[in-house]
Parts: sequence; structure tokens; C-alpha cells
Amino acid sequence: MKLATLRTADGTAAVRVDGTRAVETGLPDVGALLALPGWKDVAAAASGPEHALDEADFAPVVPRPGKIICVGLNYRRHILEMGRDLPEHPTLFAKFASSLIGAADDIVLPWASDAMDWEGELAVVIGSPARHIRPEDAARHIAGYAVLNDVTARDWQFRTREWLQGKTFEATTPLGPVLVTEDDPGLDRGSMELLCEVDGQVVQRADTADLVFGPETLVSYISTVLTLEPGDVIATGTPGGVGHARTPQRYLTDGSVVTTRISGIGELRNVCRAEKLG
Amino acid sequence: MKLATLRTADGTAAVRVDGTRAVETGLPDVGALLALPGWKDVAAAASGPEHALDEADFAPVVPRPGKIICVGLNYRRHILEMGRDLPEHPTLFAKFASSLIGAADDIVLPWASDAMDWEGELAVVIGSPARHIRPEDAARHIAGYAVLNDVTARDWQFRTREWLQGKTFEATTPLGPVLVTEDDPGLDRGSMELLCEVDGQVVQRADTADLVFGPETLVSYISTVLTLEPGDVIATGTPGGVGHARTPQRYLTDGSVVTTRISGIGELRNVCRAEKLG
Repeated sequence: MKLATLRTADGTAAVRVDGTRAVETGLPDVGALLALPGWKDVAAAASGPEHALDEADFAPVVPRPGKIICVGLNYRRHILEMGRDLPEHPTLFAKFASSLIGAADDIVLPWASDAMDWEGELAVVIGSPARHIRPEDAARHIAGYAVLNDVTARDWQFRTREWLQGKTFEATTPLGPVLVTEDDPGLDRGSMELLCEVDGQVVQRADTADLVFGPETLVSYISTVLTLEPGDVIATGTPGGVGHARTPQRYLTDGSVVTTRISGIGELRNVCRAEKLG
Repeated sequence: MKLATLRTADGTAAVRVDGTRAVETGLPDVGALLALPGWKDVAAAASGPEHALDEADFAPVVPRPGKIICVGLNYRRHILEMGRDLPEHPTLFAKFASSLIGAADDIVLPWASDAMDWEGELAVVIGSPARHIRPEDAARHIAGYAVLNDVTARDWQFRTREWLQGKTFEATTPLGPVLVTEDDPGLDRGSMELLCEVDGQVVQRADTADLVFGPETLVSYISTVLTLEPGDVIATGTPGGVGHARTPQRYLTDGSVVTTRISGIGELRNVCRAEKLG
């Protein structure tokens, strides 16, 4: 099953995606839907107003997650080719919900940064409260998966040793287009191809099988620290191929088109627009 | 004016504190109150049910801030005595709302950590949306000030280079007891004494005049990255005297009493309780 949050004339609507149709569930967004303990049955049974998907305006699939927890350094091949050892623990940092945009929204390139870079990632969305969960029990707390691009201001990321300020600029992080539920038969959970293109050129290509810390390990690890709640998002990290690590370095500019795609989930397509101050 | 969020029989209530009395404002918590553009007038005019303050059960003064942004390395004297240069930019990291507790609640010492440490701090609470704000215009976006203790799992903080996982354990961060509004005549905004005691022994003592990046500079800086919203919290950093930097190192244990006090605002008093897993 695929779920999405669409912008409508009245606000937003959580929908079930059936092929080329989107069926309203009666809930305002996928975050509100996931907060219902019986969300999967509610979504499966929904028969509200329908929309044509090719005319849909996608909001971030969860517009206001309570937490967005991001993972650094998590693709095995990339870590080894950088000459580093595989990490013992996941590196975690946060971003705030105000950074999120929809699957076709513009990425705002802040006037204050000259070094905006791409980071295609698999996002895990939580479906039920998870605290002190073992890895083997974690799958049942995962609602499903989405595509995310952790677009980063490298100059701000490395101003200090903590990355937050480069990671949470407003309107920089597309999340969507849909949430594909954990049990969807079209999803190969162990091996999804992740692809990021800039202006049609492939810049990142990886398989999620190469993750050092996979979704279930991450849910378990984080649940030692806090309670993961429905709608919370874990961004699982990006593979090699970012612009900052290239020679010469390459960054996003006004008009750049960033496409981020994961097999079995879908595609984000975002145009970069330079921020203009009034 | 002093505001607080009290736990009541029905949930919580935002109150105005008048000496030893707390007067309900009709709003469920201070976060909901601050979301009203006219919150100051609403609070000043409130004449709801009253409570005796000495019987009050304080919730975190803002129970669910949209953002909690913390500052590292921000007391001048402490940085210099560590032999470091003063930073050019503030070091920012996040914590999630699930870490917050009230002014007299227990601090939960996680079973997974052996190195829980204190960090007394001045907290700034935002009162109106702030984006691209100059330092000289920042004061009008500050609702007021509260006391916070950024209790930290040092072992988890330093597992990786990003601090988040050591900073956001559930139920570790007292925030309160009250929010003292920015214009309160009892507040010396430029010079407040910050004191942290563990089991009655003073472990941290500093003056907020020693902050490298003061509240208005922080609001301005962060507003370049994102929109600060009413109820958002900025924890301005801790001075010297933490347990991790002592010889021998000293950490909180089951039964430790942590008192955190700022002149003109008030006092947090929290007992540490070791987490027990079912």
C-alpha cells in the first residue's frame, strides 16, 4: 500500500494511492493517519474523494514529524573507499520539520550559503511507539519507507563540529513522494536501488543492502535513547558521490534539478531556487 | 510577568504566577498561550481558577516546543581556561521535546549510560516568529527566559562526533519552573547569576554576562537558518564545572539531587532515579 499527503483546496489530505488515483482517507495528513493505532485498516478501507495522481500537489509525506533523526556515514563501500574503519555506533544528528518540502517543491538555496550539496537517502517512517525494542522486533514499528534528500549547506555544516546548522535550513529537504508500507509486495526491503541525479547526470547510485546500520538496527538503537512515535522519520544516510567530495567540488545553483529515486518507492524531482531577501 | 504550565486534574493549564498564587489563563500550556499573537495581553488579563503555588505540579514550562536548539561552548571564561580560542560561530545541536521534564520531576538516569552529567543553562523562549532578524531587533521576538539543565550522557555524547544521542535521552532535561517575560522588571537581562548544585554542593556558578553569544545574537544567527516560532527554546550553553571535566570525573547517581537556579527566574530541583527495565 502507498500513502501520500496531498495539498488540496482546503489544506492537505492523507490519501491511499491506487495506481493513478489517490483516494482520500479522511485524515488531514499521513502523520495524523499514522497516529491512529488502526491506521493500516483505516487506509485500506478508505473510499473518500478521489484525485488524479498526475495532477496531485505532494506535501512532505509526513508534514510535521515529531522527530527527524538523521544518520551519517552509513554506506559500507563509501566508508571503506574513504579509508575509514566501519563505525561501531551510528552517528546521529537532527533536523527540524521546517526543513521539509514536498516531492516536486523548489529547494530553497539560502542566500547565506555558497555550498549547497545533495544527499539522496532512504527514509524510515515509524508506525507505532517504539521504546527499548530489539532489532528482531523492530519491523513491526516501521510504517514504511520514503525517499528523502538531506540537502546540506556544507559551509555551515563545517563551521563548527556539530552539523545541525548546515542540515536544517528552511525548505531544503524533500520527503516523499509516497510512504510505501513495510509489507508492500512491491518492496524489496533488503535491497533497494538509490539514485540521485543532478541536471540529468547520475551523481549517486547505491544499494540499501550496503547500509552498515539498516532500518531495524536503527530503530532498535534509537529506541534505547527515546520513544520513537508514529510519524517520526529516520533518514538512513547517504552513499558516496556528493558534490563536496568531488574534484573540483560541485554545488547546487539556481535552476539545478535534483532527482532522487528509490526502486519500489518513487521519485522526488526538485528545482533549486536561490533565496531572495526582500 | 511570570508564566508557568501546571499539571491539573484535567491535564495541564497555562497560568500567570502572582506571588504565591497561580491564575489560569484558559490555555492548556504556555506553548499554546505563546502561539496567540496577543499572548501578553491575554496572560495579563487572565482571571481564571487559582492555585496555591506551593502545591503546584510544574510541567515543562513549554511542554512540546517545536524546536529545542542548544548551544555548546558559550561561556567566555570557561573557554579561555580550557586554552581554546573564542569561537567565531555558535556551535548548535538539537534535543527533542521528549527529553523535557518539569521543575520538580525526577531525572531518569538511563540504564544504558554510566556517565550522566549536569549542565545548568539559561533558556530563551521565543514569543513571535523570527526569520532574518538583526540582533538589534531580536529582543521583541523573545517571550522570556527559563532555567534548563541539559543533563547529558557523556558516554553516548562522545560515541560519535555528533552529540545528539547523548543529549536527548527521554526525561532528562528539566525546563522551568516559570517563564519570566523579557520585560519583567525583576530581570537583569544582561547579568543573571546561574548556579548548579549537586547534593547541596555548588558545582557551577557563572554570570550570563559571560556568554560569548547572548540571547539576541543567537536569535539573529539561528533566524538566518530557519524561522523561530513561538514556544521554540534556545538553551544558551553551560559554564565550567561539569562532572566530566573533573579529576576524578563525577557523574550523577540514583538519588542525586540536582538544583539549578538563575537569579530573577527561579529554581529547578530534580532527584535522579535510575531507569529500571521491566
